[in-house]
Amino acid sequence: MTLPHTMTLIEITEFGGPDVLKPRQEAVPTPGPGDLLIRVHAAGVNRPDALQRAGKYPMKPGMSPIPGLEVAGEVVALGDGVTHYSVGDRVCALTNGGGYAQFCTVPAGQALPIPEGMDWIQAAAVPETFFTVWANLFGLGNAHTGERVLIHGGTSGIGTTALMLCREFGIQAFATAGSADKCAAIAKLGAEPINYREQDFADVIAKKTDNQGVDVILDIMGASYLNNNLKALGMDGHLVMLGFLGGGKANDVDLLTILSKRAVITGSLLRARTADEKAAIADQLREYVWPVLAAGRCLPIIDQVFDYTQADQAHARMEGGDHIGKIVLRVI
Amino acid sequence: MTLPHTMTLIEITEFGGPDVLKPRQEAVPTPGPGDLLIRVHAAGVNRPDALQRAGKYPMKPGMSPIPGLEVAGEVVALGDGVTHYSVGDRVCALTNGGGYAQFCTVPAGQALPIPEGMDWIQAAAVPETFFTVWANLFGLGNAHTGERVLIHGGTSGIGTTALMLCREFGIQAFATAGSADKCAAIAKLGAEPINYREQDFADVIAKKTDNQGVDVILDIMGASYLNNNLKALGMDGHLVMLGFLGGGKANDVDLLTILSKRAVITGSLLRARTADEKAAIADQLREYVWPVLAAGRCLPIIDQVFDYTQADQAHARMEGGDHIGKIVLRVI
Repeated sequence: MTLPHTMTLIEITEFGGPDVLKPRQEAVPTPGPGDLLIRVHAAGVNRPDALQRAGKYPMKPGMSPIPGLEVAGEVVALGDGVTHYSVGDRVCALTNGGGYAQFCTVPAGQALPIPEGMDWIQAAAVPETFFTVWANLFGLGNAHTGERVLIHGGTSGIGTTALMLCREFGIQAFATAGSADKCAAIAKLGAEPINYREQDFADVIAKKTDNQGVDVILDIMGASYLNNNLKALGMDGHLVMLGFLGGGKANDVDLLTILSKRAVITGSLLRARTADEKAAIADQLREYVWPVLAAGRCLPIIDQVFDYTQADQAHARMEGGDHIGKIVLRVI
Repeated sequence: MTLPHTMTLIEITEFGGPDVLKPRQEAVPTPGPGDLLIRVHAAGVNRPDALQRAGKYPMKPGMSPIPGLEVAGEVVALGDGVTHYSVGDRVCALTNGGGYAQFCTVPAGQALPIPEGMDWIQAAAVPETFFTVWANLFGLGNAHTGERVLIHGGTSGIGTTALMLCREFGIQAFATAGSADKCAAIAKLGAEPINYREQDFADVIAKKTDNQGVDVILDIMGASYLNNNLKALGMDGHLVMLGFLGGGKANDVDLLTILSKRAVITGSLLRARTADEKAAIADQLREYVWPVLAAGRCLPIIDQVFDYTQADQAHARMEGGDHIGKIVLRVI
């Protein structure tokens, strides 16, 4: 197979709104030691991409400035030392940036074979949310069968993934959303919706759990929800934060509740994890979640697909907040 | 052995300063099922006692309103179903309150035999701080050999206990205190003192750990130290809070640092734990710490001993803040 010398990618021409995303030609990257070079068929769109575009995401040194945290495609070249993959393999992968492009290199440990029966679009919608939910809800949050959890933003990519995995693993889920349509989508995923515009979620949790609270909360709001999240937690409950749509500086935080409930407040940024840590998450997904996907369950909910040259429209859709599930770019 | 019908205890006559503590006569309590009745020889004084006296401690239903969270003494009667203890045994115990008295009942699971070679005063100084440090520094905080920790209030009963156990288990410890005398006491326990009146503890930690931070912080300040504690934590570090001398409502809490470091913020109240949870801690202490005490290491640092009828003076000493180690009441 002969690879082209140049490719099209989508760059952030300057920090700003969706229209700063523009196609550009660049050399096809060369895979470094341990890397795969993937011909990208589809790339997932994620909230951190929009934050990065707006100049609001803390970038780690060594990260590609090109957006795109997940891709699905075929392996077209191997870096030195790669043993578990061959040219021609169909994979999906968590990238270190650079997914909005025709070709992308990723550390082999961050790739996984595409589960049987999945198409490129579905496969591209998997890595970011499944790595995130696994590492946070099941890892840091230690959610397990028989527990109760609360998922904020239940119709986001992360939210829908979390709810499907909760149903799969026998975990009772509550989820917040801001419209009747979104609440209906949450109910369809087997969870109990809470419309945050109409109800106080901590009150609903108290009522529906006989004041026992939930074992784990997956949160994307940060400051604005912190005390109410503490209220909704049960004894030894875990609050895992993934983002700060409601602010990153929390005030009037009730420390006594943390002690009284032995609450655990934590959180993580997937992008800040080392390659080894990401590979360890991939290994767990392969063991516990890939068989579920291959059986046709917990397939990602796709909101809308855009051509990658219309990444600006994809970002506008995400920032509009009306999407339910994942937004994906089709690259080929 | 014939037990008297009445005994002297120290009661909180009303919420207020140390002088609200007054002796009173009352019937000797009867041990309930699973309880030991202990003839108290010595009782430890703890900060929660002073908070309770001032009306500032959240009391759980079923707790004795009589202060005193730990005692050492001899078993003089057994409640139904007690199998592991006999009348005449020398024990120390975590109480559910009521330790400032000539007799006190405790659930048998919260008692431990007095380690060989320890006197009543030393033994009474053990339970509260050893249960607390074990459950928090080693339990919630997951401190282990080879790690680095920061102990705030390094010369308190909890602080000195934590520092001794860190030395015992090969953990590098930093500890804060507010005077040269206290810093000298910390250095004598094998830890690195930080005089918080002269230095910013997070700066010292950054400098002395090559910006790696510490793995666990045991904190008693709460709000006033929260952001600086987050600064001093390393990746995956645990902040375990035990109290709020610096306020219980935290402002301007930097959530991004929690996510970037995958910090865990937690804490607990020993008194809020169930009898089963306390018994589980006792079992671990018996296994891991009792052999150390029996070998004459990690013996509690005793600041001063008062007769129990001078509990008011003992509280004044504790609230004066000049003590180094434990304050103990001699009851017999």
